[in-house]
Order: sequence, then C-alpha cells, then structure tokens
Amino acid sequence: MSQQRTRTRTNKKKLKIIPLGGLHEIGKNLTVVEYGEDILLIDCGMAFPENDMFGVDVVIPDFTYLRENSHKIKGLIITHAHEDHIGAVPFLVRHFNVPIYGTKLALGFIKLKLKEHKLEARLNEIQPGELIRIGCFKIEAIHTTHSVADSLAYAITTPVGVIFHTGDFKIDLTPIDGATIDFSRVSQIGDDGVLLLMSDSTNSMRKGYSVSERSVAVSLENIFQKNDKRIIIATFSSNVHRVQSIINIAAKNGRKVAFSGRSMENMVKLATELGYMTIPAGCQIDISQVRKYKDKELCILTTGSQGEPMSALSRMAFGEHKQISIKPGDCVILSSSPIPGNELTIDRVLNSLLEKGAEVIYSEIADVHASGHACQEELKIIQTMLKPKFFMPVHGEFKHLMAHAELARQLGMPDSHILIAENGSVVELTKDKARVLPETVTVGEIMVDGLGVGDVGAVVLNERRGLAEAGVITVTVVYDSATNELIAGPEMHTRGFTYMKEYGEFLSGSKEAARKALEKAGRDGVTSIPELRAICKNAVRKYVSDTLQRYPVVLPIVMKI
Amino acid sequence: MSQQRTRTRTNKKKLKIIPLGGLHEIGKNLTVVEYGEDILLIDCGMAFPENDMFGVDVVIPDFTYLRENSHKIKGLIITHAHEDHIGAVPFLVRHFNVPIYGTKLALGFIKLKLKEHKLEARLNEIQPGELIRIGCFKIEAIHTTHSVADSLAYAITTPVGVIFHTGDFKIDLTPIDGATIDFSRVSQIGDDGVLLLMSDSTNSMRKGYSVSERSVAVSLENIFQKNDKRIIIATFSSNVHRVQSIINIAAKNGRKVAFSGRSMENMVKLATELGYMTIPAGCQIDISQVRKYKDKELCILTTGSQGEPMSALSRMAFGEHKQISIKPGDCVILSSSPIPGNELTIDRVLNSLLEKGAEVIYSEIADVHASGHACQEELKIIQTMLKPKFFMPVHGEFKHLMAHAELARQLGMPDSHILIAENGSVVELTKDKARVLPETVTVGEIMVDGLGVGDVGAVVLNERRGLAEAGVITVTVVYDSATNELIAGPEMHTRGFTYMKEYGEFLSGSKEAARKALEKAGRDGVTSIPELRAICKNAVRKYVSDTLQRYPVVLPIVMKI
Repeated sequence: MSQQRTRTRTNKKKLKIIPLGGLHEIGKNLTVVEYGEDILLIDCGMAFPENDMFGVDVVIPDFTYLRENSHKIKGLIITHAHEDHIGAVPFLVRHFNVPIYGTKLALGFIKLKLKEHKLEARLNEIQPGELIRIGCFKIEAIHTTHSVADSLAYAITTPVGVIFHTGDFKIDLTPIDGATIDFSRVSQIGDDGVLLLMSDSTNSMRKGYSVSERSVAVSLENIFQKNDKRIIIATFSSNVHRVQSIINIAAKNGRKVAFSGRSMENMVKLATELGYMTIPAGCQIDISQVRKYKDKELCILTTGSQGEPMSALSRMAFGEHKQISIKPGDCVILSSSPIPGNELTIDRVLNSLLEKGAEVIYSEIADVHASGHACQEELKIIQTMLKPKFFMPVHGEFKHLMAHAELARQLGMPDSHILIAENGSVVELTKDKARVLPETVTVGEIMVDGLGVGDVGAVVLNERRGLAEAGVITVTVVYDSATNELIAGPEMHTRGFTYMKEYGEFLSGSKEAARKALEKAGRDGVTSIPELRAICKNAVRKYVSDTLQRYPVVLPIVMKI
Repeated sequence: MSQQRTRTRTNKKKLKIIPLGGLHEIGKNLTVVEYGEDILLIDCGMAFPENDMFGVDVVIPDFTYLRENSHKIKGLIITHAHEDHIGAVPFLVRHFNVPIYGTKLALGFIKLKLKEHKLEARLNEIQPGELIRIGCFKIEAIHTTHSVADSLAYAITTPVGVIFHTGDFKIDLTPIDGATIDFSRVSQIGDDGVLLLMSDSTNSMRKGYSVSERSVAVSLENIFQKNDKRIIIATFSSNVHRVQSIINIAAKNGRKVAFSGRSMENMVKLATELGYMTIPAGCQIDISQVRKYKDKELCILTTGSQGEPMSALSRMAFGEHKQISIKPGDCVILSSSPIPGNELTIDRVLNSLLEKGAEVIYSEIADVHASGHACQEELKIIQTMLKPKFFMPVHGEFKHLMAHAELARQLGMPDSHILIAENGSVVELTKDKARVLPETVTVGEIMVDGLGVGDVGAVVLNERRGLAEAGVITVTVVYDSATNELIAGPEMHTRGFTYMKEYGEFLSGSKEAARKALEKAGRDGVTSIPELRAICKNAVRKYVSDTLQRYPVVLPIVMKI
C-alpha cells in the first residue's frame, strides 16, 4: 500500500506531454499537457482526408484519452487560426465544456465554426504578452509571425519547468503589420531556463531562411505596375496579411477589389470587423459589379489556389463561374504553393487558364508566395535563443521530425535529450529528465462524413473502395417460404459496372449462372437465407471475373414470402 | 463536278499531321502522318488513369479515325519503349494488321505485351541510321539519348518536305553506352531543309541543361564507396542504362545484385537476352538468397520508386515483402523523381522507411536521378541545328507546349509558323504553308478496365464516384402482381454506408419512410414498377439526407410475383 502510494506521488510530480495529433502528419494538431489533476490542451485541429478516404469530409483526432480524463481538462489554448489547429474545436466542444483561449482573430474563426455547428463555448480572448493561469500552469502568450495574423507561441510554466511551444511560425523581420517576434522576450525566457522546446518542423528540410511576406508584396506590386489587364489573384483566404497587401497594392494602383469564394468573403468580413484588415473607402466592389469597370481597374481576389474543384478559381477556369469568365489577356496570379497532393488539380486549373488565353503567374515563375514556416536557419535561431534542456520536434511528418532532430544535434543537443514521439506517445518530464514512455494512449483518425462522426471506419472505407473500383451488382431472388421454391428472380441490377453493348447478354449469362447454382442448392436441400445469399454471390462473382476480369461488389438479396 | 475533283486533287497534295493523343497531356502518344492514301503512325501509347477514373487500369487513344481510314494505314513506327509510346499497341494490333517498326529493345517490350494479350503482329527491327519506306514516306531513324536505351528520332521525308519528330530525348553527351545523338546527321538534315519540327516539350519549362546519366552513376558510386550497409535502390525498370550502371557499380564494390518486382525482373531478363545489358558473371543472385550474404555484400534493385502501393519497395517499407524486411541502417536510394500526382504515395513510403530506421537518399538530397527529357537549352540546340520552317511542340500539357512555343519565338520563329495543336487537330502542310484546320477528328480517352475496353465511360465513372462517396443502399419490395399488394419488404441492405451504433434504428427509420411512401402510392393507385422504384428511392434518399446529410446511391428493387 505504501509503495503504491509513493509511486502515485512520484508520478504526480512528473509532467506528461501527450500528442493526440500532429505528429507523423501535417494536420489535426492536439497536444495534452498534463500534471497531476490538470490537463491543458494546445490546439484542436482537423486534417484533410487522404485520397483513399472516400466520402470523408474531414478527419479529427480521437478524443478517447480526453473522455477518460475529462475531469482534468482545464483549458484549451489556441496558437493560431488555421484549420489544422482549430478545425476540430466544434467536435471537442460538443463533448467537453472547456474554456478556450486565443487571440481575437482565432476566436473569431472559432465562433464562425461553432455557429455553423449550432454550438456555444466559453471563449477567452488573450493578448500577446499576457499571462494566464490554467490549472497549475502559468501561460505566457508570445507574438510570432506566420501566414495567418496574430499567431502565438506559448511559454508554459509547469511545476517541473518551462515548456516552450512555438506554434506554427517563421521569423519574418518585415511582416506586413510590422510586428515581429518578440526576440527580447524569447531571449529572456531562454535565459531564465527552458526545460522543453516543442518546435514547428514543417520546413525543417528546407535550407536557409524563409522569404518575408514583404517580398511577396514587392513582387505583386511589380506585377500590378507593369500591367493594364484584369488581375485575378488566388490565395489562401486565411492569409490576412497577404490579402491586406493585395488590397493596398490594388488601391494604390487605381484598382477596385472584388472578392470571390465563400471562405474569402467570410474571412474579409470577419477580419474587417475585428480590425485586422482595412479596406480603403470605395475600394471594394461586389463581384456582380465587375462588368462596370475596365480591366485595368479591377483586381479580383479569389479562393482556389489549390485547384479545389468547386472553388471560385476552378469555376472561372472551367467557364462555370457566374460573374467571371477568363478571357485572353487576363493576368491570373496563384499567390500560393501547392500543398503536397494537390499538384494535379492545380495543374488542371493552370492548363485551363492558359488555354483560355490568360497569362498565369505562380510561385515557380515569380516570388508571389512565401511559406509561413521557419526554414532551417530560423529554427536554429529560435533553438539557440531558448537553449532548451530537451527538444521535441512537432508539427510534421516523420521525415520532418527527423530533419528537425538533426538540426538540434548540429546545435549540440545530445541524442538522449531529443524526444521523437508519435501520436499517442507519453513524454514524461521531470526537472532534469525526459523520456518517451513505452506505453501509449489511444489515438486515431476519426472520420467525419456529413453529420456522422466516427461511423465511417476501415470497414466502410474498404467497401467504398470496392464499390469505386468496379461498382455493384445486386442479385435478387424470392423464395416461397412454405415450399422453398424459387418463385421470382434472379433479377439483377448494376451501378458503376459497365455500359457495354453486350450488357443484355452479360446479364442473362450471369442470371443463368446464379440460377444454376441455386437449382443445385435446391437439389442439395439448402434453404437458409445466408447460405442462399452466399451461393448467389459466389456464382455471380465467378461469372463476372471469368468474363470481364472484374471484381464488383456483389450484393445478394434473398426474400422469403 | 470538275471543281469538286480539283479540290480533291489539291487536298491530296497536302500533308496532314493528326495527333490522336499526347497533346495537352503527358501520355498516350499517337500521331497520324497522312498523305493521300497513306497513313503512317508514330507511337501508340497508353496513359495512366486520372485520380477520379475509379477502377480504370489504363487509358488508350480513341481509334475511330483509324477505323474510318483503316485502308490507308501503312505502318507504325516506334520512337522508344516507354509505356506512353507503346502501351496501346496490343489494342491497336487487335483491330489493325499494321506492320510495326522499332529497335530491338522496343520490339522486345512490345512482344512481351502482345504475348500477355495472346496476340501477334508483324514486327520489323530497324537500326539507327537505317532508311525505310512506308507508303509514300521515306523514313530515317536517328539515334537519340533518353531514359530508355535505343530511343529514336525520325526524319520523315514526305512529298511536301521533311518532318522531323524528336521522340522523347535529351542531349546526353556522356551516356552510359557512349552513343550520343548523331549531331552530324541531325545538322545535315537541318542543312537539307526541314519543313516541320515536332519536338518533345516535357521539360520545356526547365531552364538550362538536363543532367547526364553519367553524373547519376558518379553520385551512386560515391554512395556505394562510403557505405558498408545493405543498399536497396528503387528506380524505373525501363531505365536500362541506370540499371546497368548500378550493376556495374555494385560489382566493382564487391556486392551481389538481387532484383525484386515483376517489371524489374522482366526488364532485366529481356535486356540481357537482347544484349542491352551485361551482368558480370556471379554478380546476380536470386532475391531468396539475400540472407546468405552480409549487408555490405548486397545491392537490391527494386521497383516502386513512385511509391506504387503494390510494388516491391512499398511492400518492403510496410513489412509485407517476403524476402526483405527493412532494418535500421539499411540505405535505401530512390533513384527517381516523383511523377506529378505521386508525391503523397512516395511520401508514405519514405516516412515508413525512415520509421524503420533506414537511411533514405532521394533526388532532393543527392544527384541520384536525371530526367530523360531535354531542358530549354537542349531544345534550343536541336531547333537551331534543324532550322525548321514550321514548329509544332508535342508531348506535353498545354503549359509545356506554350513554354516550348516561347522558346521557338526566342529563336526567331514567327508566330504564324508555330503550330499549337490539340488531340484531334488536323495540321495541314504544303511545301510552304502550314495551318491548324478549324475542323477536328474524333479523339477521346478509351478506358480499359479488366477485359473491358471502352465500356466504362462518363456514366459508369459517375456512378462509381457516387458509390465511392457514400456507398449504396438497396431497398427491395415484393408485390403480388394480381392484387398489387405489398407482400414482402421493404428490406434494406447497405455497403460502404455506415457502421454506426444506431444502425438498426437508422434501418427501421428508413424502412418506415419507404413503407409510408409506398402505402400512399398504393392509395393513389400507383402500380407500375418504374414508378414504385422512384417512390422507394426518393423516400429513402430524403430520409438519409435528413438524418445524416449523406447522399448514397439508392438502388430500389421492385419484384412482382
């Protein structure tokens, strides 16, 4: 008993960091910081479904560990307003009445999401530089620079030491709003002693420094100055500063700005209301008004920089946009870079724009985009300033985490002080020790499809994959339950299978195959529905694979009356 | 009448170039060269299906134009042995008894394909430098350098002038087999006068020169010399010279070579038999023998450089390969670069290899790959040597064709002499004029799925997309045909729809919805099967969309007995 108690007490003195999402992936960031009876959450994001997750809208972290420890959860702090950091908040709020802390902009975006889900939450606005207390944790918010305004790093003072979480960041010395990272505060925190640094690994494989947002503005301004055509710019709607730059440049060059695409319109509305964005008087026009202006008086800001099929830019490129048809001479700027996996859809849009005679400028051609994530030299600067005892690379695929670990090694960090964790890992810290425990907690990818959360899993996806591959064939037969005689069918229907000329022939062939198998079953005295279904299914599958070498889902239906 | 005849005669004096595939895309290259009663075909390739072409194995060109003019087809000349140039040959041979001309290697690959399809064809081996006659065309094969051995360009003397088709090429001055492009012959042809140049546009957006295959060998040799671990190299199996280099380097460094992956094994067998590849005696071992050797004595050459899920490298990465398990310290080299669209699957393999402790070297880290296509300066060299009167960029997406056209412009070609065509375009040439006719011929993407060719089209794909998105629900009801009474059902089955806990509740809810709708229909006197099916379908669709906001395929089955 006393041993037990001692161990419990010892455990209580250890800090646990448990990533529930965001490691070995870019997406669904959610980190548990736990000490004794207090859990602090950092971010609660979603991930986009992978290619083979048919029909899935978004993926969110598995909340099992939070459910098991719900009484401990004291608060959620948000680093910034990107989907992979806030996208799963409504799903969290549905189950846990947790106070949420973030900047005005992050909370603004969260409010919009909660409204869509018809939910409410306890939202607490924080200012960079502010100190808050959540449970046993003392938290300081530090302003950083990233591709969305008002991003924060957090210095979290825990009973065992200070944890510094960078959030997503870059070191932009000439940001659009003039507010750089607070180097002096970061250095002080480093001087005071940091136990653990958790730092953004996204660009840990890229050498050198990232490009400043200001350089993008300069490139864009050059394009505007040389151009008397209609300018259409697609960019990430969340990049408030980029959009602000473009508005400023447009205004300066005598152009009106129109916005297209729901997320762009929502962002502009929100950012303007909250004071993050200023549109010069008379500069904004409605997209329906563009016809009233000359080409050289127009700048259209649109979504779709990733080639998303339903986005405004895609619709323009393929002639399906209500107000804007691309015409020869239009200057289209993709102020973005492809998120891996989107190359082909972007290419389709790009080729279609070119075919319609537009000039297309993108990041491979001109400096019209800057990444929001720190490259190697920036990562080294932050790490050097903070001089952490332990280092845990976060926010990245495994290759990014490993590359980031290598940077730490180059800065003199011993291997034993570098913590390579995965989702579900429990990283245990004391004042002078840190290790990844051998045991893990439950983690996973919870798929959201329509209103269903978690009801689409591996089995359903596997079935969808089978249906996608070769369609479905139903075989229906009706039996007389008294005599066990086949009284109707086999009747067959197909979807997604074929449109061949010989379809009738194929149908009669496969019906015949099913009928023969059922007749044999009848002679063998088979009467149970499951057995009859299996017989139908096997007969049709064999016939189809023999004739066409295809493997559709065969769905047998046996009715007894 | 006489006018008519004159026009016909005039038409006959014009040469037509009709691309049936390969323009505005990378894939399924097939070009018609037609003069009077003679058609010469250049290449007959396949394309890989796009992401949304569910279940499609390969895509081939539409042969309608060839069927309409089958009597004119005199021969098919092959530039090189890549799938996008020879992959559709079996489908062509099935319909047209056309003699095929190519180098020993290209014909070797074609023979393998024909064998798989249980087909035969008239194959005629040609040597670089050889002159052949096909119909009214006099054709000279010119040796070039590319990422498969024995690639050819063709100088085709037609009644209106010489057409020069580069095939896929780069200017490799230090190729592995020592055989460079025959500059002297190319220059002579240029001096004698070229009417039209058709040139490879794949890398027309890349500045400078491509890297020589020899440089790749040097990089690989450096890796071998520094390494005492097991080396596993994935590369394109068709790159005979790359594979030969690796074998040579392995042998020189005291390593045995084992091959894994069907296409790699096939290629090595074929290339060795045909004399394109030499494996030093005792160097090759069977993959099942690797356990008998130390790590530093092994080099495993494998398929899967594009992260293909079923490939040998993928199986190694995910622990599903029979003979090879990746272990810490293994050195894995991806001697390739991602084909656009494959980035994510490659990344998955890469991360999994790293997680298993392998060191992974790929083209972003070291010069372990070289493109097989000419970059801008090389394209300019060929164009300058040939001094064509007209220029038609081929082999590329629209953006590549446009970039290539811009290069021609820079070299002084007037805009009116640059022919931007698309698949189906008819390019008409006389001795001094060239134009793209306003009318086009039938072209398209014929999808091959299993043994079916062309029976999967837009409708079937659309159905497969619907099935993939949300699965299928069947609703079956049985009516008494005499009384029009519902005697069994509604019975429901689903696939790929949900695995929710409340499934039973959902099923009874939707059955209830169908039953109510059918009862109303009964009262309204509806008895026709199509109407009853529509009623079932609509009722269930509405119920599902109301409860789950999902839109599965609903397949209603109404049986009458």
